[in-house]
Amino acid sequence: MKRITVAFQGEAGAFSQIAATQLAGSAFVPVPLPTFQKVFESVAAGEADCAVIPIENTLHGSVHENYDHLLRFDLLIQGETFVRIVHNLIAPEGVRFGQIRRVYSHPVALNQCLNFFEANPAIERVPFYDTAGSVKMVTEENLTDAGAIASAAAAEIYHARILRKSIEDDRANFTRFFLLRKSKPAARTRPSASGTKFKTSLVFTVRNVPGALFKCLSAFALRDLNMTKIESRPLRGKPWEYLFYLDFLGHPGEPASKNALGHLAELADMLRVLGSYPAAR
Amino acid sequence: MKRITVAFQGEAGAFSQIAATQLAGSAFVPVPLPTFQKVFESVAAGEADCAVIPIENTLHGSVHENYDHLLRFDLLIQGETFVRIVHNLIAPEGVRFGQIRRVYSHPVALNQCLNFFEANPAIERVPFYDTAGSVKMVTEENLTDAGAIASAAAAEIYHARILRKSIEDDRANFTRFFLLRKSKPAARTRPSASGTKFKTSLVFTVRNVPGALFKCLSAFALRDLNMTKIESRPLRGKPWEYLFYLDFLGHPGEPASKNALGHLAELADMLRVLGSYPAAR
Repeated sequence: MKRITVAFQGEAGAFSQIAATQLAGSAFVPVPLPTFQKVFESVAAGEADCAVIPIENTLHGSVHENYDHLLRFDLLIQGETFVRIVHNLIAPEGVRFGQIRRVYSHPVALNQCLNFFEANPAIERVPFYDTAGSVKMVTEENLTDAGAIASAAAAEIYHARILRKSIEDDRANFTRFFLLRKSKPAARTRPSASGTKFKTSLVFTVRNVPGALFKCLSAFALRDLNMTKIESRPLRGKPWEYLFYLDFLGHPGEPASKNALGHLAELADMLRVLGSYPAAR
Repeated sequence: MKRITVAFQGEAGAFSQIAATQLAGSAFVPVPLPTFQKVFESVAAGEADCAVIPIENTLHGSVHENYDHLLRFDLLIQGETFVRIVHNLIAPEGVRFGQIRRVYSHPVALNQCLNFFEANPAIERVPFYDTAGSVKMVTEENLTDAGAIASAAAAEIYHARILRKSIEDDRANFTRFFLLRKSKPAARTRPSASGTKFKTSLVFTVRNVPGALFKCLSAFALRDLNMTKIESRPLRGKPWEYLFYLDFLGHPGEPASKNALGHLAELADMLRVLGSYPAAR
């Protein structure tokens, strides 16, 4: 049996790889890539079977670049999952905490461990392109005065040691990830009788007139469908107009959701369904 | 007459300084600061009279960090303005285009001049902390093989030369800026009979139940008030719940707007008006 390939941004051990394990099981071939754009391109070109991308974090907010890519590339959202972001201080084998003078990590991760840096003012923060990549770098270069902030998985992959566990400021730190595919495997996207709740993601534009967004949301509110997220993004070429990305609990195979989508199509200038998938809990 | 002090992020010549000229006239003392947080702090502490901050760009989207600061700091929005972002290739006096091997600028600015870099593949892009700051650096260090991307104002301030004008990919590139103050000078925030349109900005939270946001928007839609922007941000400590930032055309001194705000206060869990100010055109 051929194992599926999963593209994600970052080095092996990135939080996206942890999300991929939750979404695709552990028997996949990881395809780490340097940018989100390359991740989307690799699936669009058929080089990878699917992609796992972060879409929002409970502290940092949405990953807007990925919202833009969802519109540009014609991929389908096939699943979502939540990963609790646990940041650890990691150093090469043999390095003790007292030796650490610099800590490398992605700026967002550094920014989520401010209490640690306040308690350890002698340690310098150094922005790096990736969390797992910073572990790879400090171990490969065998630095004796530097550490990295990343997942426990990254420590394991690069044979490094966790010096301080869970140094993030806020434990309510979760990232939501999407599983993307090029084409829809029919079996995975139909609501079942098993009671699985589905979520549907879509993007639409409205005419710039009073009440336009309100009317669009009525398609869901009048049918008691629960909207779980709305995100606005600038509409290219039309200054001060917006695209709206919306998630609601429901599946087009169910009558209320089907009717809501039909109603929204009447009201919106543009509407595209990005995917329906089992809602993560 | 004492000149007012205006804090902004970046070096002298930053786009925020151009916005400040539009909002506060040219007779102000510029207070360039390294981070948005320091800009908010300096006004909150009374060190600067007011601040000018970017809030959204028509290509890049919202400046989410500043939305978060608007909630944290108790400042009032007193004005808004739009600045067309024109990027220029700038180099120290005497340096010719053919000598340029590297170009420094803020990553967002570099990313908005992709056509220029595609047409000139031999020129390397180097991310720098600030647009105007990159002009300052190449001129101060008198680099003969490097340029910077920034405003024409930055070229003037640092006595550098514009080698290529308006190299941005998309001319529909505008940034919206807010003028912030600590306290409300009454005269500036009342709607006048002069026909000036006002805009009001606010932030609110809703209970996480179906239709909650729809009901909140009804406060405006039922009164034909034009909502010009809605932005969601994660609510700290409540994973997958959101704050909503909303702008509408209107002023609490007008009956429809006053009633809409009263109606929204009934429906929202939390509501704060961030300011009412003359709408930019």
